[in-house]
Amino acid sequence: MARIKIIEQVTRANDQIAAQNRQWLDEQKVVAVNLMASPGAGKTSVVMRTIEALRGRARIGAIEGDTASQVDAERVATTGVPVVQINTGGGCRLDANMVRPALEQLPLDEIDLLLIENVGNLVCPAGLALGEHVNVVIASIPEGDDKPYKYPGMFLVVDAVVINKIDLLPYLDFDVPAFRELVAGLNPKARIFEVSCKTGEGIGEWTEWLAGMCPRK
Amino acid sequence: MARIKIIEQVTRANDQIAAQNRQWLDEQKVVAVNLMASPGAGKTSVVMRTIEALRGRARIGAIEGDTASQVDAERVATTGVPVVQINTGGGCRLDANMVRPALEQLPLDEIDLLLIENVGNLVCPAGLALGEHVNVVIASIPEGDDKPYKYPGMFLVVDAVVINKIDLLPYLDFDVPAFRELVAGLNPKARIFEVSCKTGEGIGEWTEWLAGMCPRK
Repeated sequence: MARIKIIEQVTRANDQIAAQNRQWLDEQKVVAVNLMASPGAGKTSVVMRTIEALRGRARIGAIEGDTASQVDAERVATTGVPVVQINTGGGCRLDANMVRPALEQLPLDEIDLLLIENVGNLVCPAGLALGEHVNVVIASIPEGDDKPYKYPGMFLVVDAVVINKIDLLPYLDFDVPAFRELVAGLNPKARIFEVSCKTGEGIGEWTEWLAGMCPRK
Repeated sequence: MARIKIIEQVTRANDQIAAQNRQWLDEQKVVAVNLMASPGAGKTSVVMRTIEALRGRARIGAIEGDTASQVDAERVATTGVPVVQINTGGGCRLDANMVRPALEQLPLDEIDLLLIENVGNLVCPAGLALGEHVNVVIASIPEGDDKPYKYPGMFLVVDAVVINKIDLLPYLDFDVPAFRELVAGLNPKARIFEVSCKTGEGIGEWTEWLAGMCPRK
């Protein structure tokens, strides 16, 4: 079973680097959040709204992951926060070894909260440690309320679920209580936030939760 | 570079099985379509609309891929077409070896058009052959018009792009001409269809294109 053995070695190597990243972040008193979601669920919009809401309360940095392009990093950079783009070159998720050099490029001593936007994907990023303290999946209304059925591996490992694009509820069939029940069945400890990055609704509750995790330097 | 060598072997083994699947489908005069998309872009809805539109013109079969659950296969089964669910057990895409036993469970001699719904993912399924004749990506309006920038690997390998959920255009900022231009820049030969599975708009043009590829048995 040489193939499985190699996969285990890769995962173990990743975990070791993730632990080093985590230790480095801890030393710098940076709380890191791994933001995961389908393509187009609104990860970058959540990052933008979070930066705006926490301005003056927490100093934010961002790492943007994509298979290609730097459009997200360019968007985040307009807010003035330090940001690094990682292109995976076709890879379906970030890993700890990709995050390491990104950390080296960020002024960690001037950051309280590091938002790491993973590659848009509900499968591959789940459970692969980057060094983060908090794992979050963003689910959006247009994707439908059945996603926890189909991607349980993701919903099982997160600390919070952000339901984004709730401004679209009038136009779509998305049963919020049914979705909440599905998530609670898989992962009773996961916090659930309902937000709209378009209108700003619910952003306050989400960012209060994040701010509560940041130590004061 | 043992790790790279093993990845090549896996891809090569997959390609061999895919070629066998393709040959088997050709012998049975079945045209197979690999439908790829983000989670929640509407793959199953496209399958449902396609079955409905081609009823009496092409005999359809379906393979539904997901990491877990059989909700999609149950939905498709309500139409009466033969359908098989593949659960990848956490795997981020179908491969040729998973499709093989699914083909064995389908009455291929009674099928003209086989719709294979891949796992919701814009990265991993791109370019991994299953034995299909046609590759299609479904992009949905709520995901945003920047997806070809971020997932070029997918948009480069497809024969057609279906833009789904166009009924939501009044509520969202999605620049259709800009999206079409991005796709054309990456892949000038790709056909582009604009559809709404909710209203049925555009489904006729899409299904005419599919029907035109089916040989008469």
